[in-house]
Amino acid sequence: MPRPKPLSGFPEFLPAGRLIENTVLDIVRGTFELHGFAPIETRAVEPLDQLSRKGEIDKEIYVVRRLHADGADPDELGLHFDLTVPFARYVLEHAGHLAFPFRRYQIQKVWRGERPQEGRYREFTQADIDIVGQDQLAAHHDVEIPLVALDVFEKLHRDLGLPPVTLHVNNRKLAEGFYRGLGIEEPAAVLQRVDKYDKIGPEAVVELLTGEVGLSRTQADACVALAGISARDESFVDQVASLGVSHELLDEGLGELSALISTANRTVAGRVLADMKIARGLDYYTGTVYETLLNGSEKLGSVASGGRYDSLASDGKVTFPGVGYSFGITRILAPLIGKGRIVASRSVPSAVLVAVDNEETRAAAIETAARLRARGIAVEVAPKADKFGRQIRFAERRGIPFVWFGAGHDDSVKDIRSGEQVPASADAWMPPAEDLRVTVGPA
Amino acid sequence: MPRPKPLSGFPEFLPAGRLIENTVLDIVRGTFELHGFAPIETRAVEPLDQLSRKGEIDKEIYVVRRLHADGADPDELGLHFDLTVPFARYVLEHAGHLAFPFRRYQIQKVWRGERPQEGRYREFTQADIDIVGQDQLAAHHDVEIPLVALDVFEKLHRDLGLPPVTLHVNNRKLAEGFYRGLGIEEPAAVLQRVDKYDKIGPEAVVELLTGEVGLSRTQADACVALAGISARDESFVDQVASLGVSHELLDEGLGELSALISTANRTVAGRVLADMKIARGLDYYTGTVYETLLNGSEKLGSVASGGRYDSLASDGKVTFPGVGYSFGITRILAPLIGKGRIVASRSVPSAVLVAVDNEETRAAAIETAARLRARGIAVEVAPKADKFGRQIRFAERRGIPFVWFGAGHDDSVKDIRSGEQVPASADAWMPPAEDLRVTVGPA
Repeated sequence: MPRPKPLSGFPEFLPAGRLIENTVLDIVRGTFELHGFAPIETRAVEPLDQLSRKGEIDKEIYVVRRLHADGADPDELGLHFDLTVPFARYVLEHAGHLAFPFRRYQIQKVWRGERPQEGRYREFTQADIDIVGQDQLAAHHDVEIPLVALDVFEKLHRDLGLPPVTLHVNNRKLAEGFYRGLGIEEPAAVLQRVDKYDKIGPEAVVELLTGEVGLSRTQADACVALAGISARDESFVDQVASLGVSHELLDEGLGELSALISTANRTVAGRVLADMKIARGLDYYTGTVYETLLNGSEKLGSVASGGRYDSLASDGKVTFPGVGYSFGITRILAPLIGKGRIVASRSVPSAVLVAVDNEETRAAAIETAARLRARGIAVEVAPKADKFGRQIRFAERRGIPFVWFGAGHDDSVKDIRSGEQVPASADAWMPPAEDLRVTVGPA
Repeated sequence: MPRPKPLSGFPEFLPAGRLIENTVLDIVRGTFELHGFAPIETRAVEPLDQLSRKGEIDKEIYVVRRLHADGADPDELGLHFDLTVPFARYVLEHAGHLAFPFRRYQIQKVWRGERPQEGRYREFTQADIDIVGQDQLAAHHDVEIPLVALDVFEKLHRDLGLPPVTLHVNNRKLAEGFYRGLGIEEPAAVLQRVDKYDKIGPEAVVELLTGEVGLSRTQADACVALAGISARDESFVDQVASLGVSHELLDEGLGELSALISTANRTVAGRVLADMKIARGLDYYTGTVYETLLNGSEKLGSVASGGRYDSLASDGKVTFPGVGYSFGITRILAPLIGKGRIVASRSVPSAVLVAVDNEETRAAAIETAARLRARGIAVEVAPKADKFGRQIRFAERRGIPFVWFGAGHDDSVKDIRSGEQVPASADAWMPPAEDLRVTVGPA
């Protein structure tokens, strides 16, 4: 078999990259759990009619069928393209066994049959949190969700050296109330154009609003003026007020957004930006919306996004409103790992290589390894009885910091970086804390 | 949307079940790493021609294609049905970047389009370890692999109360050498029939061997006598010798198997059985073979299996021999979780619910929660300002053991099981170690 070629859009890491990804996922998962989110995992496939309901996303779906499918097979299936559709189905299917408000996290691969290009993948990992209520869900949960996101990103920044982030937050009620206060009947049409603010600039948005939506120049100017407002504190409220528009829904949105900003700033100052041009394309958001930019890598686009929705799902009697956030794990990590901007301290978990002098002493080496492992130290035994220098080079190639010599009869351990070698007991010796596990950090 | 029905063969857990699964996977992963295995994750899909190479497995494959595929699309893809085919491809693709012998683990979903039935799934999780060499791999690695398996299963038994296991081990060289020593030309044909020993019994195997394979009655009797031999120590060597057959390959197999049994018994006594009737269906095994039965649930079949193979992959110049073990995580857990034989201490990660007296004090509750989380305690804030009793019931329903009252002004914490309530500081109080995390154990 000739050397296989990678499949475009399906990123895979070398072991060191996967060690980095696992370290990140452990932080993400641990933080979700600290905030009381319970894990679920859903199957990779959903019935095709569930996946294709949203017209425009049709073409991105991967259809799945048995190679030798026959008439007895159930309806066609597709791979899920996000974790929201399967979660909505899961909530409906298991509602009787869940306690609401239900806080769940879910970290899984998703698949999209898009044309692969820079920053777009056909298979990638998402990490989602959602809080879902039965018929109602209090507004204060919109404040809670970005606190989790900030907690995650601050740890990734502090512990692993990932770039810090800025959370851009807006509120659909604020925008819709503002537009209605201007006498605009179709706020959705306006929002759709304002969504292009960053790409095409304010003047072009004004043109779209007057040309395509039919707003007056005054209305369009006011909409674009609103979109231009942003602030890291509650000063945006006065800025919006200075535009002289009033509407009940606008006040509600302003109130929700300023509560969010002030609570977030009490937790981690300076990371959240009230940003009136954030719209989020998806129709189902109805209140707060979130986007997250990696500082210095803004051109990647939002790496974690979400918002409030009135109806995740409904069984006809009960409706499930919620608020959620989705972290694009692959989108964040693949460029950092691929460009070597974040690295692992070694390519294997092992902190120690137990050397083997000759094959007759292998049993003693295995026993020494077992004693070290019993105390939580990752160890491998040299695959070959070999000379001193070769054992060192074997460890060096993998980044294993310590080599254990004379297992079971004349035990000593050598730090191959400093060259220091000391007598040691397999029941007592510990590597320094920073060498015990693989560490991950900036290059 | 009406309540969705489960898809047969695609098991999903409620959050408490997923907490159990995660606890198990953490032990599995942690143990693999203690033994120096590095993680990889491969994409879910492989080119169809790679997956369908092994004729008989054809019909189990799920084909994957874009809903609106066009001529420009690459070759058809299929979901992987095990982790060996993708690993073989990964080794060939990345050989230049891997250090051999390469020790890797891989924990992922696999898919098989089989008819669903008791104990068979269409989507399930496997956890694989393999040690792969370049052109050669020493025999002692065959001894190392079951030590990892024993370490995993002993921890699952000791820490989570899973049933203990028996590792059944055999060696293809032993069987093949024995058959050749009897003058049999087609050892594979014999092995294939001996594989049915447990299902159809020794007499029926003798009939197959004389009828279908054309052995003499004496040859067939000897083969079945060999298959009947098993021992928890090295006594099997004498039992085989007493059958009076000799062959070089038989001696090699006996030597490898007794080294394995004696090393395994030094590590965990009484869990390994040299079992001469273990054949493993797959053709590519060439030496040691492993199967694992859950004591008391033998009818589930082998829940973890593997063996030695001469060629995982080859690029024409280099061949990659290896030895591996695959743990059927879903196969082990789905029945235990489904029947409630293993349970989680609560259905959410939270150890503490911070009560909210009235909505004006929510900010103080959020701050108290943050202080507890900063010290590693999983916390959620009550979604609603409510009466004392209702807050308790909210925690009770989820199994949260502690409720925090008077956040920020008159802090106290109540163990809702004992009713004991004590003044506490969010910067100092810790729950007992056994309440800090969700614990998993027998019902």
